Amino acid sequence: MLSEFDLIQQYFQRPRHPQRATLGIGDDCALLTPSPAMQMAISSDMLVEGRHFFAGEDPYRLGHKSLAVNLSDLAAMGARPVGFTLALALPAAERDWLDGFSRGLFALADAFNIELIGGDTTKGPLNICITVFGEVAPGQALRRSAAQAGDDIWISGTLGDARLALAGYRHEVALDPASLQAAAVRMHLPVPRVELGMLLARQGIAHAAIDISDGLVGDLGHILKQSGVGATLNVDALPAGAVLATRDTALRRAYTAAGGDDYELCFTAPVSARSAILAAAASVATPVTHVGSIDAASGLRLTDAGGAALALQLQGFDHFTS
Amino acid sequence: MLSEFDLIQQYFQRPRHPQRATLGIGDDCALLTPSPAMQMAISSDMLVEGRHFFAGEDPYRLGHKSLAVNLSDLAAMGARPVGFTLALALPAAERDWLDGFSRGLFALADAFNIELIGGDTTKGPLNICITVFGEVAPGQALRRSAAQAGDDIWISGTLGDARLALAGYRHEVALDPASLQAAAVRMHLPVPRVELGMLLARQGIAHAAIDISDGLVGDLGHILKQSGVGATLNVDALPAGAVLATRDTALRRAYTAAGGDDYELCFTAPVSARSAILAAAASVATPVTHVGSIDAASGLRLTDAGGAALALQLQGFDHFTS
Repeated sequence: MLSEFDLIQQYFQRPRHPQRATLGIGDDCALLTPSPAMQMAISSDMLVEGRHFFAGEDPYRLGHKSLAVNLSDLAAMGARPVGFTLALALPAAERDWLDGFSRGLFALADAFNIELIGGDTTKGPLNICITVFGEVAPGQALRRSAAQAGDDIWISGTLGDARLALAGYRHEVALDPASLQAAAVRMHLPVPRVELGMLLARQGIAHAAIDISDGLVGDLGHILKQSGVGATLNVDALPAGAVLATRDTALRRAYTAAGGDDYELCFTAPVSARSAILAAAASVATPVTHVGSIDAASGLRLTDAGGAALALQLQGFDHFTS
Repeated sequence: MLSEFDLIQQYFQRPRHPQRATLGIGDDCALLTPSPAMQMAISSDMLVEGRHFFAGEDPYRLGHKSLAVNLSDLAAMGARPVGFTLALALPAAERDWLDGFSRGLFALADAFNIELIGGDTTKGPLNICITVFGEVAPGQALRRSAAQAGDDIWISGTLGDARLALAGYRHEVALDPASLQAAAVRMHLPVPRVELGMLLARQGIAHAAIDISDGLVGDLGHILKQSGVGATLNVDALPAGAVLATRDTALRRAYTAAGGDDYELCFTAPVSARSAILAAAASVATPVTHVGSIDAASGLRLTDAGGAALALQLQGFDHFTS
């Protein structure tokens, strides 16, 4: 039987990063040396079986996604990722599962040059809680409260394919196997927009930002509320995922506007920054699309490509009412 | 029905600390401004129903204990607590539970002048994951690897009453109601030894430290392994909790040496620091007891009050093999 100590040592303990984490796994706390004059950006996300992922989900993908959704929060602040802790409740210490999970986790961690600095393991219903740490220069963080009337609204990448895959798994939408597989990559292996977020923050060209996890309309709503503004969103301008783009207009509108699980950035920036935004996005090979504008008047107005009002019944995801 | 947003706003959002957390709950990340030239000490603990606490546990006590076990990790490093994140999976958003839990949590947070800076809530089997942040001056952290041959071994407070209460609840040991209630305070409302840990670190008078959560013998074992040393422990010198002290010798020895859930500090210090240790402990009103010594020879030797070898069958708690 694999003990807790062996589990940590075999699957989660790796050589220490020479510069940053003075002390990693194996003491009461990790010790992290912040870079001088930088702020720490910190976020925690908890993933629960049956809620955030299916029972029996492939452990490699789960390791990737658990870290990706947290890195996406750092991206939305414009912070540079530094490290993370992992607290893990497992029904049993199964070697195959641990091997896959840790490989998926560390593959993404290595891609962003960050390390696991501590955590906890215990027996219990499968639950993955990651806390990420990043750094951002004072005053540069992209805040939800910073949108200004007249700002453009931008979206990175594409939206809706993760939601389409979910609909396919649930047989709410008929999808051929190849389409389901293609869409499902967005659901299982989201890539956090870390480089774009860092660049927007460093260049000071964006105002507000949020990552799109519960659906664009709901997440943009947080920016509007906290900034005390409204917005007009051209729903037909929303960039649909490659698979969703082949479907009918109603499905495309619904899943781009309020799909969820996208892990793209929604950010606002002054009109004067348009060319700078496009250049920054191009420099990190991340497509961005201008999809609307921030209004002084409160409320969110959805329009079609011609500017006519659209009455869509949309709802963001809420963990306790849905 | 209480939404996720309302749940956070009603039970977990409080006024921001004016100095430290620049940005707290309500953005993608919290922003924390580290004090210049300090290291961050970081620890995560996950508490699972049926494993770390009984189903139906009083929520106030649970809020207290969830934070206390994390603060105990900071205490064991000698770090000053600064803030924490809370990720919470709940079967349902019940007002009574949330009210009790948040009151217990914040009562302890206020006692240590720290704040909740962010987190996550989701539906799922009850699971509480807290990550704490503290600060410690470079070089001052109390590490498990720093014990030296010849060091005294010290214990703060008393041991074993939490384990005795557990035995009482399980009817492994007969306890009258008043005794059970007295012992159970140690199980439900542990007080982390934060001030003592900070003082030992700041004065530089201790070498290694660990907090006793899985039983002294097992936790001291981590210090011995990481420091490459052994130890001799006078089991009869171990300070028993007030209720346990009234029980027979065998029970007292077993529960002080390997009870678990004590949240006291075990630390080592040179013999020359004895009077400084006692003075420091007195200044923060925390009793400390000298219970053994670190040996150059590996292994842990248990003795009785007369120095004769004791062969106790003891085992630390392991989450996956027990």
